[in-house]
Amino acid sequence: MSGPHFERVALIGIGLINSSLACVLRRDKTAGEIVACARRQETLDTATKLGLSDRTTLDPAAAVAGADLVVLGTPLSTYGGIAEVIAGALKPGAIVTDVGSVKQAVIRDVRPHMPAGVHFVAGHPVAGTEHSGPASGFAELFRDRWCILTPLPDTDQGALGKVTALWQSAGMKVLTMDAEHHDLVLAITSHLPHLIAYTIVGTATDLEDALKSEVIKFSAGGFRDFTRIAASDPVMWRDVFLNNREAVLEMLQRFSEDLTALQRAIRWGEGQKLEDLFTRTRAIRRSIIEAKQA
Amino acid sequence: MSGPHFERVALIGIGLINSSLACVLRRDKTAGEIVACARRQETLDTATKLGLSDRTTLDPAAAVAGADLVVLGTPLSTYGGIAEVIAGALKPGAIVTDVGSVKQAVIRDVRPHMPAGVHFVAGHPVAGTEHSGPASGFAELFRDRWCILTPLPDTDQGALGKVTALWQSAGMKVLTMDAEHHDLVLAITSHLPHLIAYTIVGTATDLEDALKSEVIKFSAGGFRDFTRIAASDPVMWRDVFLNNREAVLEMLQRFSEDLTALQRAIRWGEGQKLEDLFTRTRAIRRSIIEAKQA
Repeated sequence: MSGPHFERVALIGIGLINSSLACVLRRDKTAGEIVACARRQETLDTATKLGLSDRTTLDPAAAVAGADLVVLGTPLSTYGGIAEVIAGALKPGAIVTDVGSVKQAVIRDVRPHMPAGVHFVAGHPVAGTEHSGPASGFAELFRDRWCILTPLPDTDQGALGKVTALWQSAGMKVLTMDAEHHDLVLAITSHLPHLIAYTIVGTATDLEDALKSEVIKFSAGGFRDFTRIAASDPVMWRDVFLNNREAVLEMLQRFSEDLTALQRAIRWGEGQKLEDLFTRTRAIRRSIIEAKQA
Repeated sequence: MSGPHFERVALIGIGLINSSLACVLRRDKTAGEIVACARRQETLDTATKLGLSDRTTLDPAAAVAGADLVVLGTPLSTYGGIAEVIAGALKPGAIVTDVGSVKQAVIRDVRPHMPAGVHFVAGHPVAGTEHSGPASGFAELFRDRWCILTPLPDTDQGALGKVTALWQSAGMKVLTMDAEHHDLVLAITSHLPHLIAYTIVGTATDLEDALKSEVIKFSAGGFRDFTRIAASDPVMWRDVFLNNREAVLEMLQRFSEDLTALQRAIRWGEGQKLEDLFTRTRAIRRSIIEAKQA
């Protein structure tokens, strides 16, 4: 199939997602030129060495000049500042999109800075690993995963179509939904699991030293799956929690209530209650396997 | 290397662990005869079909008659009853061991029934998958994992040596520790992670139907790792929590306090606190990778 084409793509931030996207752009020859921008020269040097970009710059405004597609892929807390800095350099007709894990905050921070004639499409390719940085990228990261776009009523349909085609070319299934709904769904499927994993690994970190070394030794019993998740990028995740506060706290509240109920069942030896829950949760796993997301 | 040898091995229960052990025994020709015992004929038929046993029986006493090694691999709540039933049929000099995830309760339930001249060695091969039943077993399950034996001061050293050699032949690194200490270490490395995973998957199960189908769709963001753990055998895990109550509740208490602190940090926008924790947890992951348990 004939995919999308862009003369110049500016990747603002070249971490796991944008470097994986660069691999896709290279593979499919989707971009005439790729410009990578990062905060540190070292990161850009790695991107250059890996052939992820044709040109690099530390200046976001220089990166987006003349680009027909700009992809924001930095921690969420930087979006507002970057949007402000690039606003004056954006080419009329340029498409600006992003890969952030929260969407209401992105729309709040980026949209007010976008000049007339520039098309902003907020997006979230739901894919990842616990690794970060430009060297962790690979084109197959997106294969068969979902990409959620959260257009607004006034979003340009042509721009939406091009961003859709971009992620489809990466192998993703693309759908659109309301930004508020996105933030709620991701709070339970992604943000809360990360918060829980960070917490339990933190609890283990605080154990007495003798016990801690044994936790590492015997991690195969379940704990190590949490440590993988809890090895994710600290700054990215700090920003996710700060920018999706309400939805995360709402889901956390539900989780805490359920955990307290389970705690009580253990304390009072209510075996049937435990077995019932543990049986119900098996069904969700089966659904995920059937949905080919396992 | 020349491994251990047993004339007749009785496997009481033929789930994931005992069927995997049967694969090892078959591979290494460690057992002259393997007798499998289960509660349901259907399970035994599967074991026979898979060649896991030479003989099957629904009667634990018949299974252990003449056996020089008996391996208990049923849910913890059944141990006391089984120990009582098999006591009279055990051959003098026989070794009885187990694979249960809790050790103080096993010693409490099994030991009083063991006749003089029968050697009981409580053990726990720390390995597993989310699958259960005889068809889920495979010899490689144990490779490079730890096996913890919790002998008592009066445990027969010869029997301890043979059980050690058995698990070493399965590829495990074997060590001994105090049963109480085992239960505490496993509470944090295995029992609490399972409890948390069951809880969060349960929380998602209780969501409104529309939201629930989306949780399945977008599970790749972190949630699906929890569903894998929460697909583990419900009865086995019910019994783990009921039989390691104190240690699990102690670790759960620590976890809850840490989670509340994190919740507060999110509510009050304390970014530095979040970033600090998320950075510390990365170090544990590195230690696990270095310890080759990832």
